[in-house]
Amino acid sequence: MKIDIVWGKSEGKTLLSAFDRALLEAGIHNFNLILLSSVIPKNSVVEEVGKAHLSNEIGDILHVVIASFGCKKPNAIISAGLGWVQTKQGGLFIESKGEFSQEDCKEEIRIGLSEMLEARGWNGEIKMKIISHRVEEIANVTVAAVYCNL
Amino acid sequence: MKIDIVWGKSEGKTLLSAFDRALLEAGIHNFNLILLSSVIPKNSVVEEVGKAHLSNEIGDILHVVIASFGCKKPNAIISAGLGWVQTKQGGLFIESKGEFSQEDCKEEIRIGLSEMLEARGWNGEIKMKIISHRVEEIANVTVAAVYCNL
Amino acid sequence: MKIDIVWGKSEGKTLLSAFDRALLEAGIHNFNLILLSSVIPKNSVVEEVGKAHLSNEIGDILHVVIASFGCKKPNAIISAGLGWVQTKQGGLFIESKGEFSQEDCKEEIRIGLSEMLEARGWNGEIKMKIISHRVEEIANVTVAAVYCNL
Repeated sequence: MKIDIVWGKSEGKTLLSAFDRALLEAGIHNFNLILLSSVIPKNSVVEEVGKAHLSNEIGDILHVVIASFGCKKPNAIISAGLGWVQTKQGGLFIESKGEFSQEDCKEEIRIGLSEMLEARGWNGEIKMKIISHRVEEIANVTVAAVYCNL
Repeated sequence: MKIDIVWGKSEGKTLLSAFDRALLEAGIHNFNLILLSSVIPKNSVVEEVGKAHLSNEIGDILHVVIASFGCKKPNAIISAGLGWVQTKQGGLFIESKGEFSQEDCKEEIRIGLSEMLEARGWNGEIKMKIISHRVEEIANVTVAAVYCNL
Repeated sequence: MKIDIVWGKSEGKTLLSAFDRALLEAGIHNFNLILLSSVIPKNSVVEEVGKAHLSNEIGDILHVVIASFGCKKPNAIISAGLGWVQTKQGGLFIESKGEFSQEDCKEEIRIGLSEMLEARGWNGEIKMKIISHRVEEIANVTVAAVYCNL
């Protein structure tokens, strides 16, 4: 499986249009997203591409693991992130999001993913992509993992 | 793609059974709903049918964009609505729902959808279907777009 | 359709890793879960198996109806449950979850499912599986119905 990590952050006039603009930055605004929980198949290639460049048609279904947070409190610090690990047996994503700093988001991912690995007896290096933002009026931060071959 | 707009509102004894009765009014209570985000494929036909009349089997999967709101505050005014636009390039849905009036729901849809169109450089007429209700005990309002050929 | 009822409860270091450990107990931690709403196809076999023993590959998609509740209030009583009914015409699941006792969960399922049956003119015996737990630090309770042939 080819899995592309993409992300975006944006202000908007409503929570939904801010989310839409974050998806646009990530290159996945013109697809119908179906959410997956969090498992990476064996022999997958996970790559941080930032913005997806997909040849799918407008309205096609796209399967994604997504961490997305919207907020309309001016000056709030918001973060959304995915952490992931790949091992010989398979891999895992974890999402983290909320009104907190990049450091707190990183820590939540580290603790949660470590425990998920331990529960399976798996070992591997934790990678992360976190997007943070200080809200001006209404904003959204999003990180998504696009399962390109589903 | 044939896309049918359906809707319902209902009181119920629990939030979930009120939702179920709203789905029944909409004609989609006997299917397993999988939620899509919001994009309309090119050359789709979107029609306000009110109640779906589908020949699918009980338990079949149905892909829908849905705006649904349940509430158990007597006398609260609740609304749920979908707005949509079709253009030559493709189309978009936006959902809006909450404890607010039909007018506020309409305004949120108009502002959000206008910004989503602007972000893509798309143009088209905004259409909407909004259902509002004054809660007696426990109630739900739902508007859904059924992707009939998925 | 073969539908397996599975369940788990666990403490964890974060809400998400507690959820993951509950899924592990249920045997569905290594799949990508896609959520279905609640309808049971005709002639399905629903069985309480506790822990799934699936031969699917790590990362495969699994369709589930799920009731899951996470909580980080020490000493809180939390419950999650599925109720179901099968009739000649088809069947229904209902989920219930929250910070309440097994008895309250049972009552919510009974009332909601009775109303859903009545709305369809269906009759059948209500069955349930409910998991409850007193939170130590951070915990999750989960009951899921796995649609094995989807």
